Amino acid sequence: MRNFSLNRVMKSVLCVLGSTWLAVLSPVHAIETVESPSLNMKAYFDIRDGRPIYWLLHKGDTVIRPSYLGLQLRGEHSRGDFNNYKEEKTIDNGITGLMNGFVLTGSERHRFDETWQPVWGEERSIRNCYNEMLLTLKQPSKDRSIQICFRLYDDGLGFRYIFPQQRNLNYFVIEEEHSEFAMPGDITAYWIPGDYDTQEYEYTRCKLSEIRGIQEKTSKANLSTTNFSTTGVQTPVLFKTNSGKWLNIHEAALVNYSCMHLNLDDQNMVFTSWLTPDIDGTKGHIQTDAVSPWRVIMVGEKAQDILASRIVLNLNEPCKISDTSWIKPMKYVGVWWEMIAGSADWSYTWDFPSIHIGVTDYSKAKPHGRHGANTANVKRYIDFAAKYGFDGVLVEGWNIGWEDWFGNEKDFVYDFVTPYPDFDVEGIHDYAKSKGVKMIMHHETSGAIRNYERWLDTAYQFMNKYEYPAVKSGYVGNLLPRGEHHYSQWMNNHYQYCVEKAAKYHIMVNAHEAVRPTGLCRTWPNLIGNESAQGTEYQAFGGSAPNHTTMLPFTRLIGGPMDYTPGIFENDIRKFNPNSTSWCNTTLCNQLSLYVTMYSPLQMAADIPENYERFRDAFQFIVDVPVEWDEPYYLEAEPYEYVTIARKQKDTDAWFVGSTNGYDPRTATIDLSFLPAGKKYVATIYADAKDAHYKTNPQAYTITTKTVTSKTKLKLFTAAGGGCAVKIVPKQ
Amino acid sequence: MRNFSLNRVMKSVLCVLGSTWLAVLSPVHAIETVESPSLNMKAYFDIRDGRPIYWLLHKGDTVIRPSYLGLQLRGEHSRGDFNNYKEEKTIDNGITGLMNGFVLTGSERHRFDETWQPVWGEERSIRNCYNEMLLTLKQPSKDRSIQICFRLYDDGLGFRYIFPQQRNLNYFVIEEEHSEFAMPGDITAYWIPGDYDTQEYEYTRCKLSEIRGIQEKTSKANLSTTNFSTTGVQTPVLFKTNSGKWLNIHEAALVNYSCMHLNLDDQNMVFTSWLTPDIDGTKGHIQTDAVSPWRVIMVGEKAQDILASRIVLNLNEPCKISDTSWIKPMKYVGVWWEMIAGSADWSYTWDFPSIHIGVTDYSKAKPHGRHGANTANVKRYIDFAAKYGFDGVLVEGWNIGWEDWFGNEKDFVYDFVTPYPDFDVEGIHDYAKSKGVKMIMHHETSGAIRNYERWLDTAYQFMNKYEYPAVKSGYVGNLLPRGEHHYSQWMNNHYQYCVEKAAKYHIMVNAHEAVRPTGLCRTWPNLIGNESAQGTEYQAFGGSAPNHTTMLPFTRLIGGPMDYTPGIFENDIRKFNPNSTSWCNTTLCNQLSLYVTMYSPLQMAADIPENYERFRDAFQFIVDVPVEWDEPYYLEAEPYEYVTIARKQKDTDAWFVGSTNGYDPRTATIDLSFLPAGKKYVATIYADAKDAHYKTNPQAYTITTKTVTSKTKLKLFTAAGGGCAVKIVPKQ
Repeated sequence: MRNFSLNRVMKSVLCVLGSTWLAVLSPVHAIETVESPSLNMKAYFDIRDGRPIYWLLHKGDTVIRPSYLGLQLRGEHSRGDFNNYKEEKTIDNGITGLMNGFVLTGSERHRFDETWQPVWGEERSIRNCYNEMLLTLKQPSKDRSIQICFRLYDDGLGFRYIFPQQRNLNYFVIEEEHSEFAMPGDITAYWIPGDYDTQEYEYTRCKLSEIRGIQEKTSKANLSTTNFSTTGVQTPVLFKTNSGKWLNIHEAALVNYSCMHLNLDDQNMVFTSWLTPDIDGTKGHIQTDAVSPWRVIMVGEKAQDILASRIVLNLNEPCKISDTSWIKPMKYVGVWWEMIAGSADWSYTWDFPSIHIGVTDYSKAKPHGRHGANTANVKRYIDFAAKYGFDGVLVEGWNIGWEDWFGNEKDFVYDFVTPYPDFDVEGIHDYAKSKGVKMIMHHETSGAIRNYERWLDTAYQFMNKYEYPAVKSGYVGNLLPRGEHHYSQWMNNHYQYCVEKAAKYHIMVNAHEAVRPTGLCRTWPNLIGNESAQGTEYQAFGGSAPNHTTMLPFTRLIGGPMDYTPGIFENDIRKFNPNSTSWCNTTLCNQLSLYVTMYSPLQMAADIPENYERFRDAFQFIVDVPVEWDEPYYLEAEPYEYVTIARKQKDTDAWFVGSTNGYDPRTATIDLSFLPAGKKYVATIYADAKDAHYKTNPQAYTITTKTVTSKTKLKLFTAAGGGCAVKIVPKQ
Repeated sequence: MRNFSLNRVMKSVLCVLGSTWLAVLSPVHAIETVESPSLNMKAYFDIRDGRPIYWLLHKGDTVIRPSYLGLQLRGEHSRGDFNNYKEEKTIDNGITGLMNGFVLTGSERHRFDETWQPVWGEERSIRNCYNEMLLTLKQPSKDRSIQICFRLYDDGLGFRYIFPQQRNLNYFVIEEEHSEFAMPGDITAYWIPGDYDTQEYEYTRCKLSEIRGIQEKTSKANLSTTNFSTTGVQTPVLFKTNSGKWLNIHEAALVNYSCMHLNLDDQNMVFTSWLTPDIDGTKGHIQTDAVSPWRVIMVGEKAQDILASRIVLNLNEPCKISDTSWIKPMKYVGVWWEMIAGSADWSYTWDFPSIHIGVTDYSKAKPHGRHGANTANVKRYIDFAAKYGFDGVLVEGWNIGWEDWFGNEKDFVYDFVTPYPDFDVEGIHDYAKSKGVKMIMHHETSGAIRNYERWLDTAYQFMNKYEYPAVKSGYVGNLLPRGEHHYSQWMNNHYQYCVEKAAKYHIMVNAHEAVRPTGLCRTWPNLIGNESAQGTEYQAFGGSAPNHTTMLPFTRLIGGPMDYTPGIFENDIRKFNPNSTSWCNTTLCNQLSLYVTMYSPLQMAADIPENYERFRDAFQFIVDVPVEWDEPYYLEAEPYEYVTIARKQKDTDAWFVGSTNGYDPRTATIDLSFLPAGKKYVATIYADAKDAHYKTNPQAYTITTKTVTSKTKLKLFTAAGGGCAVKIVPKQ
């Protein structure tokens, strides 16, 4: 006999604009279901043996098999190790946290349909249309309830836990969240290893059953890295089912909660959520009212459907910044690559074994002569930016402290306001302003979180004073407090704190080494970028896989834009650093393509000015390509192999196309049917030469022009590690 | 053959005012020695088997037997557990951190003599006179050096480690400091248990050999408590040698270092330093140049010598605040005891299971009617303060968040600026100002350190706006970051951060539950008080030992003043809280005596106004007693039994005497020879009645006046848990 009751009271619902109300009377014992607006997706929910369970169908095909939901709580289970959960349950058969003992007491349905305008993004407006199933689950023996909310879109499912405020569920500590994702068989996964501290990995494509063997051999190159399981993966993680459908699992609206990894039971092909622990090993301290982030399962027929889905953005809250006029996409250059590649340093001197901020006297120090962020060099970049119409100049290594900035678990590593003696902050501000260029601030924290928070107001005020509109922040290395991980609730709270405080100062944030984005840029559009993946810098750290950027749009970029910093024209890192053996594993045209395939409101031209002047004709594409768009067209896509995207420039009759290719040379087919019919356009085509190759001949390209119409299908060769880029404007 | 060399180069020394230069040529292999200015103390230093060792004599008697010095470093020893140190050394015979392998390469002597004026204190000026022995120790195999500096005073020894900046000793992590204090036999100790999180204990007097048995049975009543060893004790720890000399071991100038406990080897009667760990178990992250705090051994013939010693203040740096005009001692009352005793609450409502600061709407909440910090009640205290000339009024529970302020490991527990609906911050400010009374701010952090630091500037700015000159801060309960301890390097850094930031805002700090003071009030005299011991509140938490305050001047107060909050006139806590079984274990006159025996620039009259009006005549002593003094006279002292102190009021021809008694009734002898000879004075004497007793008859007292001169010796009865207080002014 199941103790089962349904609360059928129809509560009044706050009708937001464009939403309607669908009330469904659920029969006793019936499985709860909800369908997506076009009925192509259907989600099922039930309680089995007191445990919540769901499954998901796409056009009749099971894409998620029956999967349990629930959370284990600290102190509500006699063993700390969640691995013993099932065994313990057998022994005890009692209530374990928010795992079991549930009855369904309420079931509501809501329909929502709105169209909203992002402050920036791939398109001018986004439709947010879903059917919601809100279930209330009670544990009668504990006299407490939670809710699970399902939102079914035509392109995916989002669900979250809701913890209403109540006397019997007031504060609790998460031991582990056990949200299951039972995969439809031994399907293909595109994944990077689960890690509490870094996302800087290359992707593997393999069957689920092969993950363990490959993951065990994955190199851990990052300065801060913590794997937790040989079947652990990070989200967004992409899948191709054996029937050819595409899935992607990620999370949305990660606020005051731990970042979710997935751990695979590779006997049963079931992923289970695996949260990032806080410093004390717990996985979240919750005070009700509270909600978990959304767990998101994207589903598509084609790989392009994954690119086109806006479910992650839609599951986030609307913009919380009332005046967004100061938030502006930027294309920028910077004093950066020369340090990454090794021809210059962030530091200023070799005089001191270590630096005491506020004590060490730099004025008497002998410069080592390799300091990149010197006024003359910065002005050179400002001149270059002004000459070619870039919005901004980033400068790293401008502030004191870089002599011993990592590897020492140093607390007071920077003050974020004191420039090196050779960096004239006032003069540079004036000079940049006179040239119409904005300076971009850099705050490397070295992971010393308390120190950064102590200085944050002062640092942002300094930015306001010198009119820096944006900051690139960094979290390199292990964190202080020692033992804290980059993706814990504690740290996620920190990143959010910085973004919200920055908004008060009208500052845009581009946080590197921070937690992977989960669509929060909808709510806080001043979060204009993140790294959170292996970026271009790895081309100087040994070289990235040539197909790395054919994966990022389907994975990392699902949560928000990446400051990937493309535009490397000179492949040979030895030209910067004779001791280097590194090589940039792309062709020059591949680099050009990234400005279109890797959407970001913040795009860097990362190479040094000399290299752009050397390839002045190819550089023109970077000069021309915008960072604001009206609409995207996902033309071709095979993750791990290639991706071809076109975009219409915002408020302009111009289109840009990029095709990024992986290992195998191919011919991209670029169907221009997105162009308005009956008009003639001129396409400027930047393409790999026939003999181009990322390793042996990367700088071989052709630039041609061609008259095109909406009926044109361009066939463009893309080399191994290659690509092509096209600019299309009306024919005069 | 010992590898032993001495660098005898006479370096030029910065001669500070009043210092002279004593150069001693140390013969090879000679033991290094230094004597105190009056030659009554002599310290010896040697290197034995590569290990630094010292011992200390007072008038020819060994007070510290040969004791090793050194530090174990993380990563420089093959085993993490320091307990294996000796074993490991036997196996390895190699270099372990900064423990061994040393040779002496330099030896300097300096003489220092100055007299300085504290901003506030027990006297107008303090002499700082010592002979210094600065030893340079090299580990040739590691090519690195440290220094150990000994400063020998007539009343004690201070020594510290100095870690000069050098390429081979740049950053290091302390596994443990192993500074030994080999006691002269199984002597008597006056101690509280070692604890990483609380100092709120009562003192035990016993032989060293008895500590283990007693410590194991010590109750751990505090909300946050972490004992580490059954022979662990806290400093300051008092000792009486078997020949009747008094010793006290403490530390001075605890800055950016872990707080030291002592752990006893009770076979050999050797204490060894035991630092408080950081969250990761390490005991200090050091970047050279750096120094350890001073390890201080005070020595006296009489117990009064311990009270008179200023060695802890002298070992601190001079004042770093240039304008100290805003730092003013205060006598105050406050909305506090009624909550402690249980007749009022800090909180405002019972409507909410928990509070979300900034979200929970108090304006619609039903008050529970027990909120102490309501405007009417606060004005009542302001009136009372104005009527009797108190400088300030403290109010606890004025700001939102107290409904769920502890026990939840809550992060965002307070914002420190939002008052409860019934606390009119503006009106109270205006009212207090009109009455010439200052409001004292209260910042309970609930141990949520990040949250407090995030709000600190805002909170201090709020104080400036409403003209609060001082803040009582609190660190109740376990800390966030979770696992951090109250006395770790990380936390000590936090307390110091608050004090230094407060100085910028001209704010005085009185930090409760913070690390014990180590004389830092010399350097930062805006650190006007600390709790850091069992205070008066325990009289409402079950009652304190009647002799507790006969110990505090010899122990806790060695490092700096305590906000003990004396003045409880009503012993029966049931009058506040019918459910209480607590009783204040002192007579009323004992309470009066504390205003003299427990020096503090911040003195509270902690009872409620009604109780002072009930005993209006006795209250007059609290009204009259000042908080600023010219000079102290330590008349009688037997720690654990009694202490009698007289003080001359600053800039005034008035003296105040207090005698605080313990368990056994006795007659205090108060020799008034400190009075100027040949003049007549009137003494107003507040004394226990003959039948007074802390338990049965605490409010029995007599008030008499008597003409006295410098030849008078007052004989005053003090009851069990009793005391007396005397005010002496010139006879008109």
